[in-house]
Amino acid sequence: MSRGPRRSGTIDAVTSTATDTASRPLAGSPFLEACAGRRGSRTPVWFMRQAGRALPEYRALREGVPMLESCARPDMVVEITMQPVRRYAVDAAIFYSDIVVPLKAIGVDLDIVPGVGPVIAHPVRSAADLAQLRPLEPDDVSYVTEAVRALVAELGPTPLIGFAGAPFTLATYLVEGGPSKEHARTKALMLGEPELWSALMGRLAAISAAFLEVQVEAGASAVQLFDSWAGVLPRRHYDAHVAPWSAQVLGRFAGRVPRIHFGVGTGELLGSMADAGADVLGVDFRVPLDEAARRVPGRVLQGNLDPAVTLAPWDVVEREALGVLDAAEGLPAHVFNLGHGVLPATDPGVLQRVVELVHERTAR
Amino acid sequence: MSRGPRRSGTIDAVTSTATDTASRPLAGSPFLEACAGRRGSRTPVWFMRQAGRALPEYRALREGVPMLESCARPDMVVEITMQPVRRYAVDAAIFYSDIVVPLKAIGVDLDIVPGVGPVIAHPVRSAADLAQLRPLEPDDVSYVTEAVRALVAELGPTPLIGFAGAPFTLATYLVEGGPSKEHARTKALMLGEPELWSALMGRLAAISAAFLEVQVEAGASAVQLFDSWAGVLPRRHYDAHVAPWSAQVLGRFAGRVPRIHFGVGTGELLGSMADAGADVLGVDFRVPLDEAARRVPGRVLQGNLDPAVTLAPWDVVEREALGVLDAAEGLPAHVFNLGHGVLPATDPGVLQRVVELVHERTAR
Repeated sequence: MSRGPRRSGTIDAVTSTATDTASRPLAGSPFLEACAGRRGSRTPVWFMRQAGRALPEYRALREGVPMLESCARPDMVVEITMQPVRRYAVDAAIFYSDIVVPLKAIGVDLDIVPGVGPVIAHPVRSAADLAQLRPLEPDDVSYVTEAVRALVAELGPTPLIGFAGAPFTLATYLVEGGPSKEHARTKALMLGEPELWSALMGRLAAISAAFLEVQVEAGASAVQLFDSWAGVLPRRHYDAHVAPWSAQVLGRFAGRVPRIHFGVGTGELLGSMADAGADVLGVDFRVPLDEAARRVPGRVLQGNLDPAVTLAPWDVVEREALGVLDAAEGLPAHVFNLGHGVLPATDPGVLQRVVELVHERTAR
Repeated sequence: MSRGPRRSGTIDAVTSTATDTASRPLAGSPFLEACAGRRGSRTPVWFMRQAGRALPEYRALREGVPMLESCARPDMVVEITMQPVRRYAVDAAIFYSDIVVPLKAIGVDLDIVPGVGPVIAHPVRSAADLAQLRPLEPDDVSYVTEAVRALVAELGPTPLIGFAGAPFTLATYLVEGGPSKEHARTKALMLGEPELWSALMGRLAAISAAFLEVQVEAGASAVQLFDSWAGVLPRRHYDAHVAPWSAQVLGRFAGRVPRIHFGVGTGELLGSMADAGADVLGVDFRVPLDEAARRVPGRVLQGNLDPAVTLAPWDVVEREALGVLDAAEGLPAHVFNLGHGVLPATDPGVLQRVVELVHERTAR
């Protein structure tokens, strides 16, 4: 197993998107226009975790169905992915899944425990433990193919964003054995056993890429790589031990579909995450978009209303959302989103008003 | 209740420290020299959470004693505060306590639940709930006075750092009712009910300041204000709704003892936290000290070895610790520390070697 792939170095412009979609219902999609660096008919909006916890229709559907089962049933995946599109008229759908779905699909013994998160039966801490991680084949996730195909047909003019966890974030769950605040075992393995780390990240990069590939092959119009926990690393560790593997995943889709790259608390990492591959760089709520633009000039940015703001009265939500639009003015293009996932306590009516507000204020 | 105190604007140099301590055993303390902006005989070292979980002698002493009880028994406080000083020969002791001790002392119904953290019986979410928060009187924490006096006598030439949670971090526990990942209720209250927020923060600032005052009056040589969760806020919210109250606490000690101001994930807030009051600014492990120095030029910095690094083999720990020293070279002075608290799994022998390494490499 090699120590690391070559970094792609440059970001390929997604020049082909508009052409590819010209004859399809996606032509003129505000989301795809923004991904291509153009200010289209309006600023597009979608919300991370829009499919899920905040929606009563989601909670009703999920009643009695464990998380991982819901991700493996094409009918549920389609319905849950569609719910926020119907309710909010967002400009993109995000494929409903979970970060650990591809691991489950290759036979890793894990479960998502309500109130806890993913729990791994046999954490990965030695070379022998890597045997759990065989490559992901399309047949392992035929339900994903089926769901994406059905979704693309049903979505019509609304693009579908493919979803996957980045190698580092997957590694944290595997090494820690579950969710963690400090990610201390992961960091210790990364720094203390670089050969084992590289072997682990190589396998995870292949799995993450294969999971996205299935979605793109079935018709997803973009991908978002979620490196949720990358922000726990100082930049030099991210650069040495994480970026090459994320670049490997993202490089596979360069010039094919727009690639969104996102992590939480990654203000110090924005330049590195952009270099690793990002037609659109997701920014969490801690860094104003104009400041993010100073760190990664000329980049299309996605974000970044603090999800907690949606719990405040509407006048506050409106002020903060308009503040995000103001901060995005100097960008080549902007994909409006939250700076992290929708909170379970958020009133869907507030998100609906946010969509209307952004559309109304940015209509061109 | 007013909306906010005036910001002090300037940071008063702690010119009096060296004079005050000249005739006392603290004269020439590397820690106090560094706090005053001077490179003394060596770079001082101490570790956040050095008193506690990683030490077998601490775990033995705490057996069967609940956390809050251990903080209220002067004999235990003295012993636990001393343990790391004896073992590591660190350059400063940090007063053993917990962030919620002053709240407990004024009668807030709370407990520290093992494996969970502080749990508040009646969260503060309305003006009526503020009645729980009366001012802290020295008599409420006579055990603190007693313990600090005993410690100062026993510590001799090693300075004692006073300990308190900052108003915002205290507020998060009170509003959420316990530990939280998103701090969503706190943010919603802060933005949605600014009058209530100000009233809450005003009371907490007074409590936090009074808790530190007791320690300083009894002989503590410095204070550290822990705003552990400030990093969950965008800077403009920190500036408007948090900084004035932290400045009120820290301003009280300006020119009296050195003030260390610290929070986790505060890379975006360093300038604001420095402005709020910091003779020494604590930096978490995400921002290299040379980069932090670019954000707050001329400032004495404390930090910032990633605590997770201490779980790696010694050659990695050594390389990373030396990297911190290198990054600190351009500072007026540097207080070596971790970038967050000692992890329970850390081998105390490793911390001891870190102290020796820093002392040896910086001896002047």
